[in-house]
Amino acid sequence: MEEAQGTSRLHLPLSFPPFVASIDGSVLGCVRSVAADSDSGPLVAIATLPGSDSVVQSNDGTISVASAFAGHQEAVQDRDHKFLTKAVEEAYRGVDCGDGGPFGAVVVCNDEVVVSCHNMVLKHTDPTAHAEVTAIREACKKLGKIELSDCEIYASCEPCPMCFGAVHLSRIKRLVYGAKAEAAIAIGFDDFIADALRGTGFYQKANLEIKKADGNGALIAEQVFEKTKEKFQMY
Amino acid sequence: MEEAQGTSRLHLPLSFPPFVASIDGSVLGCVRSVAADSDSGPLVAIATLPGSDSVVQSNDGTISVASAFAGHQEAVQDRDHKFLTKAVEEAYRGVDCGDGGPFGAVVVCNDEVVVSCHNMVLKHTDPTAHAEVTAIREACKKLGKIELSDCEIYASCEPCPMCFGAVHLSRIKRLVYGAKAEAAIAIGFDDFIADALRGTGFYQKANLEIKKADGNGALIAEQVFEKTKEKFQMY
Repeated sequence: MEEAQGTSRLHLPLSFPPFVASIDGSVLGCVRSVAADSDSGPLVAIATLPGSDSVVQSNDGTISVASAFAGHQEAVQDRDHKFLTKAVEEAYRGVDCGDGGPFGAVVVCNDEVVVSCHNMVLKHTDPTAHAEVTAIREACKKLGKIELSDCEIYASCEPCPMCFGAVHLSRIKRLVYGAKAEAAIAIGFDDFIADALRGTGFYQKANLEIKKADGNGALIAEQVFEKTKEKFQMY
Repeated sequence: MEEAQGTSRLHLPLSFPPFVASIDGSVLGCVRSVAADSDSGPLVAIATLPGSDSVVQSNDGTISVASAFAGHQEAVQDRDHKFLTKAVEEAYRGVDCGDGGPFGAVVVCNDEVVVSCHNMVLKHTDPTAHAEVTAIREACKKLGKIELSDCEIYASCEPCPMCFGAVHLSRIKRLVYGAKAEAAIAIGFDDFIADALRGTGFYQKANLEIKKADGNGALIAEQVFEKTKEKFQMY
């Protein structure tokens, strides 16, 4: 079987779904099902990546992905950058309002923003009102359901263990975050947040795709802390 | 130095505070400060256990505790049992009301109940409205502050990672729980909750004293699941 034009070399672990598929280190998505194509020999498999039209085909032990259109990866990057930027804007807005720390989160369903929230710890006198928990609560209220398995969440910063737990409990399918936890710790936040690093593997195993922004996305997210640190009361 | 009458052999790790002091496997409290008593030789130390008048003295490498009154341990057990029973009653109440799963939590400050809450996931269409998160939010609202460092929390069941995170963020000083997470998993809850086991060591290091109920306290807490499993909608 020849590779279709415009495909890239895809890396898949040799295990049953769910698993994370990546191209050149960039996570494409969580593969939830693989169908064997018996006409093409025993090494050929077809997998569907949720949220895209990509078809994955194995070919003599190597695997390629035929995207539905050229530049699929770039489109995913652009889309992620757009929603992550919105989460970063929320982080600034939260500090401007005096509502809490510089953290924002956006819940997206079918390319539409469901809710866009920021940290409300000070405003609501509630230590659990982190941006992600607030966004999940608001999205569930708005959509009238307790599970968000058709949604993604974009967070300006790596979630803390409480927020990772909330993302898991809400069954959100995909998390994209901007700044590393260490960027928040560097301006004085509890290093408890970095425990999320330990949790990442666990949550990925639990069917949640997790993507750390890179390049400009990571940069604008990490700048939030330096740019706001004089403007809010640390708690 | 002779041990005072009515004292018990106390086990303390040979490290600097904070650390957890225990007698015969029963956790007494988190020791936050140790003062050396130079008159009594280099091996003697006096430590104060927060929330009690206990004085801890080391004696040639062994350490004894002189309680402020005989039966101190029994009083702590009785007190813990009283508040844990209230948390268990909340778990049943939550199911009776149809508000959510069979989980209850009580926040206590200076021997007084601040709030007594149960799981509100179904009632509020909110996957983050676990009993502990709800209790912390309500206690903060009632006390008008975002940190509960003078409070304890009693939970009918071992907290999930999200709730452990919320307890940590609220700076609650002491957690007493009844049922092991496995008792909830046995009736069908997400085994995500058992990840808390991994977290216990981490949270203890972070100045939170954690006590697992034993005997009758554990029994009544674990019975909650068997007794309610037909009465609520699993989510």
